[in-house]
Amino acid sequence: MLDIRKSEYVRGRSINLALSERGIRALKQVGLQDELVNHHGIPMKGRMIHNLDGTRKPIPYDPRSNQCIYSVSRRYLNEVLLSATEKFPNVSLHFNHKLINANLKEGRMTFQMTGTNENALQTADLIVGADGAFSTVRHHLMKQPMFDYSQTYIEHGYLELCMPPTSDGDFAMEPNYLHIWPRGTFMMIALPNQDHSWTVTLFMPFPDFESLDSPTRLLKFFSQHFPDAVALIGKHRLIADFFAITPFPLLSIKCKPYHLDNTTLIIGDAAHAMVPFYGQGMNAGFEDCRLLDELLLVHNYNLSTVLQEFSASRQRDAEAICDLAMYNYLEMRDLVNRRSFLVRKKVDNFLFWLLPNIWVPLYLSVSFTNIGYRQCMDNKQWQDRVSESVFN
Amino acid sequence: MLDIRKSEYVRGRSINLALSERGIRALKQVGLQDELVNHHGIPMKGRMIHNLDGTRKPIPYDPRSNQCIYSVSRRYLNEVLLSATEKFPNVSLHFNHKLINANLKEGRMTFQMTGTNENALQTADLIVGADGAFSTVRHHLMKQPMFDYSQTYIEHGYLELCMPPTSDGDFAMEPNYLHIWPRGTFMMIALPNQDHSWTVTLFMPFPDFESLDSPTRLLKFFSQHFPDAVALIGKHRLIADFFAITPFPLLSIKCKPYHLDNTTLIIGDAAHAMVPFYGQGMNAGFEDCRLLDELLLVHNYNLSTVLQEFSASRQRDAEAICDLAMYNYLEMRDLVNRRSFLVRKKVDNFLFWLLPNIWVPLYLSVSFTNIGYRQCMDNKQWQDRVSESVFN
Repeated sequence: MLDIRKSEYVRGRSINLALSERGIRALKQVGLQDELVNHHGIPMKGRMIHNLDGTRKPIPYDPRSNQCIYSVSRRYLNEVLLSATEKFPNVSLHFNHKLINANLKEGRMTFQMTGTNENALQTADLIVGADGAFSTVRHHLMKQPMFDYSQTYIEHGYLELCMPPTSDGDFAMEPNYLHIWPRGTFMMIALPNQDHSWTVTLFMPFPDFESLDSPTRLLKFFSQHFPDAVALIGKHRLIADFFAITPFPLLSIKCKPYHLDNTTLIIGDAAHAMVPFYGQGMNAGFEDCRLLDELLLVHNYNLSTVLQEFSASRQRDAEAICDLAMYNYLEMRDLVNRRSFLVRKKVDNFLFWLLPNIWVPLYLSVSFTNIGYRQCMDNKQWQDRVSESVFN
Repeated sequence: MLDIRKSEYVRGRSINLALSERGIRALKQVGLQDELVNHHGIPMKGRMIHNLDGTRKPIPYDPRSNQCIYSVSRRYLNEVLLSATEKFPNVSLHFNHKLINANLKEGRMTFQMTGTNENALQTADLIVGADGAFSTVRHHLMKQPMFDYSQTYIEHGYLELCMPPTSDGDFAMEPNYLHIWPRGTFMMIALPNQDHSWTVTLFMPFPDFESLDSPTRLLKFFSQHFPDAVALIGKHRLIADFFAITPFPLLSIKCKPYHLDNTTLIIGDAAHAMVPFYGQGMNAGFEDCRLLDELLLVHNYNLSTVLQEFSASRQRDAEAICDLAMYNYLEMRDLVNRRSFLVRKKVDNFLFWLLPNIWVPLYLSVSFTNIGYRQCMDNKQWQDRVSESVFN
């Protein structure tokens, strides 16, 4: 693990993230809500849809209330969390240690120290693998019999661009929205940053990225599909940013169980990486922490009970949100592929992708409550709505 | 890989296997049909159902024809295949080499020689990983972006027992059948061996295995559920065999794609391990070989084309048979869990598990033809039958 406070931009990680109720609730529990949400987060009260003709249409998350989600920078978030951790005398941080081997049952781990050939051995009563989608702890869990696992890549990749502040130092677009350019098989979104720039993310099938193999083709594509964005990003910057990096793949990971006896647990992306189309990845990870903390208190730190109960109940909920995120993605793709005018109109106007408007009650319960994901999904009401809208 | 010709019983591998049309067709293509099927295989023309009261009922696979599947010993099969391989001057066999590392793109592999600390390096133009459900080649493919993978364990394990020949040296049961004791949540099957013994396999949820923790409990369980089998196996042998080994887990593995560029391919269980409830695991593996061979000829050994085409078309078919095998398992489990008398009766009488009688046309096309698995499954006729039988 790197100390992100001392490192440059980390390739393959988004620059900013959308924080919603589940993440906020967990931060509140550790006293960091004020620092992260109130002082740093940029509230987004709805989506701002960019039409092809340059017109924009705001769609609030919940017109009846002022509920917001918040754009926060990944780097700042990590800085605050790490610095808060350092205040505990019983916490030791070891950066630049890469886990290369583990005997989970016996709590033994071997770390390679980055940049040297030296290994460090470490033992632990409990190993908590919060080591992301490509988790090494999970890799060792996978060797246990009865460990179910799946990883699924989607055909879309993503690439981040930057829209700078105006010459006056202001936001180039209305700041309190998540901006979206829905375009059928591809789309672009933008989240605001503290320095008044925007991080713009383009989602597109890999072959489409590959077809944009020259500045001319890139500019033609952007001028055709995102004319207003070209002007705001700037042609030179667009070309420079686009060709500086290759698009990243997106994958969904499910597994079961999350624990091994009373020695090992995986949480966050290590246990349930999801495609980003419900904006819940980080929030689900933070919720893991809160739920684990609560179970430790309830069961008086009896690890056998805690890990088993966390694993069983959390797995169901995490699978639900992984499914919802993937369903949003597939839904969009399928609808776009049915080429009837009606459906195209539906897609263009009602934005199934990232914008489950037919699922409003579901979206609200996922993003603005702490009700278990599975229970949100089991809500009969939205299922019926979906059936009516989608299958008729 | 071990030279099975020189090794004892290999733990965790079934002793005998059911060979059907797809496997036979592939063996015919390499001139081994006679040796393996006609001279060695024991034909099984149907299932022989053992009822609780000791009565038996034969159910032919296809009453209109004499189509058979064949019980063959895994050891003999391996012996014949290996010895046939050795006749080719351009084939070198290296036993006791365990693949421990690979750079697939560059065709480089590191093998550890069993029993020594020495490593052997090897390069290859094409690496074909036929290294089973826990494939190391697949493990390295998994590190490639866009590689989809899933492994799913089922709650049943299996344990093999032996039913000896009679004192006259004969088969203790009618030899030309696959014998089945269907018992709801668990079941037992038996396949005949050349030495007139039977290999008896008990399938049962792991907790049920664990509950049989003493000879007394074991005998009580068998006397209650398999009274006729106890007499034929013998109480002492039953106790000795049962407690000599622990039950093995069963898992289903799907992945995509099966290849990497023109350097690497996985086939057989490495690409598509399945639960054994359709009796197609080995047959699908042999069919892989035939199809690969045919594609190599068609495309004049252009590996890029061959691997890509094999991967795309075979993946669809293999996924279909993995699903069918799993569906048979889930179907059985679900029906048993619905405790209505009617359903229990259905289960007891009509044997959904391993015996898809409502799927007769499907079972026949899977076991007795070379039609692609996916096409077998897509056959509308059986789908309708299943819907009628299962969902009404």
